[in-house]
Amino acid sequence: MHGLCRREPVLEPLGTVAIVGVGLIGGSIGLAVRARGLAGCVVGVGRDEARLAEAVRFGAIDVATTDAANGVAEADVVVVCTPVTRIADDVRHAAEHGPEGLLITDAGSTKHRIVEAVERHARARALFVGGHPIAGSDRKGVAFADANLFEGRACVLTPTRRTPADRLRRARGFWGRLGCRILETDPVAHDAALARTSHLPHAVAAALAASIPVELLTMVGGAYRDGTRVAGSDPEIWTAIFLENRRPILDALGIFQGQVSAFKRALMAGDADAIRRWWEDARALRARFDAQTTPREALED
Amino acid sequence: MHGLCRREPVLEPLGTVAIVGVGLIGGSIGLAVRARGLAGCVVGVGRDEARLAEAVRFGAIDVATTDAANGVAEADVVVVCTPVTRIADDVRHAAEHGPEGLLITDAGSTKHRIVEAVERHARARALFVGGHPIAGSDRKGVAFADANLFEGRACVLTPTRRTPADRLRRARGFWGRLGCRILETDPVAHDAALARTSHLPHAVAAALAASIPVELLTMVGGAYRDGTRVAGSDPEIWTAIFLENRRPILDALGIFQGQVSAFKRALMAGDADAIRRWWEDARALRARFDAQTTPREALED
Repeated sequence: MHGLCRREPVLEPLGTVAIVGVGLIGGSIGLAVRARGLAGCVVGVGRDEARLAEAVRFGAIDVATTDAANGVAEADVVVVCTPVTRIADDVRHAAEHGPEGLLITDAGSTKHRIVEAVERHARARALFVGGHPIAGSDRKGVAFADANLFEGRACVLTPTRRTPADRLRRARGFWGRLGCRILETDPVAHDAALARTSHLPHAVAAALAASIPVELLTMVGGAYRDGTRVAGSDPEIWTAIFLENRRPILDALGIFQGQVSAFKRALMAGDADAIRRWWEDARALRARFDAQTTPREALED
Repeated sequence: MHGLCRREPVLEPLGTVAIVGVGLIGGSIGLAVRARGLAGCVVGVGRDEARLAEAVRFGAIDVATTDAANGVAEADVVVVCTPVTRIADDVRHAAEHGPEGLLITDAGSTKHRIVEAVERHARARALFVGGHPIAGSDRKGVAFADANLFEGRACVLTPTRRTPADRLRRARGFWGRLGCRILETDPVAHDAALARTSHLPHAVAAALAASIPVELLTMVGGAYRDGTRVAGSDPEIWTAIFLENRRPILDALGIFQGQVSAFKRALMAGDADAIRRWWEDARALRARFDAQTTPREALED
């Protein structure tokens, strides 16, 4: 990077953090890094100059560039926050143009295909630790970014046996300092878990939204409002995630369809005990979630 | 009622409002009536003395009684807030023991069977207007009651051709003064609509909660949290609602299952365009809901 950052490196653990893709997630990372003083400079890398300028105005990044090679040239950490279908290419590009000591991580909601593609590239493999902070919004763009988005949220790291130990250590430190609880699992297990815990709930929200016609919207209540909230999420991002994680999501849908069918059978039979038992099993699982939730998460919308 | 209320009737539109069943909904009605000064006295009628005492302490009612006949004897308005399977009996009982000029309404989430049963009783029919304020909570009991629960919420009234016009007018006035937007439809149409707008979203929330095992709960995000919230609702109340409105709910489940299948087919085919179109249709419906939502509803949890 040639004079992009005017701030002098200060006594901070990181000199420069480069964020590739400065939307809601990338912007929130930038805000969190700056708010916590974790780096001397935050560089935003993107393709759209107007959006980059907005991110600078919003305070999510110090400087912006559409030249990805230049943007990562002096970085200590590169965080790739582009849509899942672009992440592997962006990681490889950063590896080719970044310094030897670089840590590259990402924020993609799927991991198996991304990690596999990155690991086919020797230099990228030596610098990369797959990451997935489980935080987001149905809103899109840097204007909805939030310095506290990651506070108390899980970040799943997906090292493999080829991931260098020092990079894993640094990735834990980086995401941890943004406020995340660190979890670790392999990329395949990550995708199977997230198919159930996130991708399925998104598909269900959309299926529910699609089931209630506009003329009945005056009569919906809180169950509709909360149950369909994430159906407002970005179509491109979600089409990409669904396709990236197709097989595990199909499995999760099968499990869910089995639950719907079990309820339907109990209802067709008019079997009050079976309906009650079915409801109580679901309620017990939901209660387990409430019990593990921190007060902040419980209050937050 | 023999000296239950010590407060003198004041210059208010209603003398006494009796609430049969003082849980979350009945308690919120009591709080709202008292906060808005809509009645001289609010009597709570119930079967459990400890719970009634809690409702008095909480300020939801002025006085309490387990003697339902005595509780409604001097009421201007009786609101029946018991579980749907008990409402018709409680309405008929109030009609038998209340004064000639009484208005009886209810807060049941289903209407067809309740209204049908009430209308078989001549005196009850002459006093009753079915009501359903679309407001609630996954929490149970008077401790979670809220004087503003009905603010801006729809209340669906379900008059029939046998409902006296003056009672309908008074029911509109009563629910309207609690803050509700009044909608009117016949009981069968109400149940078909609510099967889609409320009962289906509850069943879907429980099916979703049942699909995510406890060992994956560390990796859930906001889509799970919001999508399963109402799975925490009371099993007795919901078993009763599902059985009361069985046929319309089965129809709604069929529509929903069709949406899930459409998504699954598009995903199996790896058809990005079909997935995107499906998502965008759902998203457009959800956006229509957001557009009609008042700021208060949007902010509230």
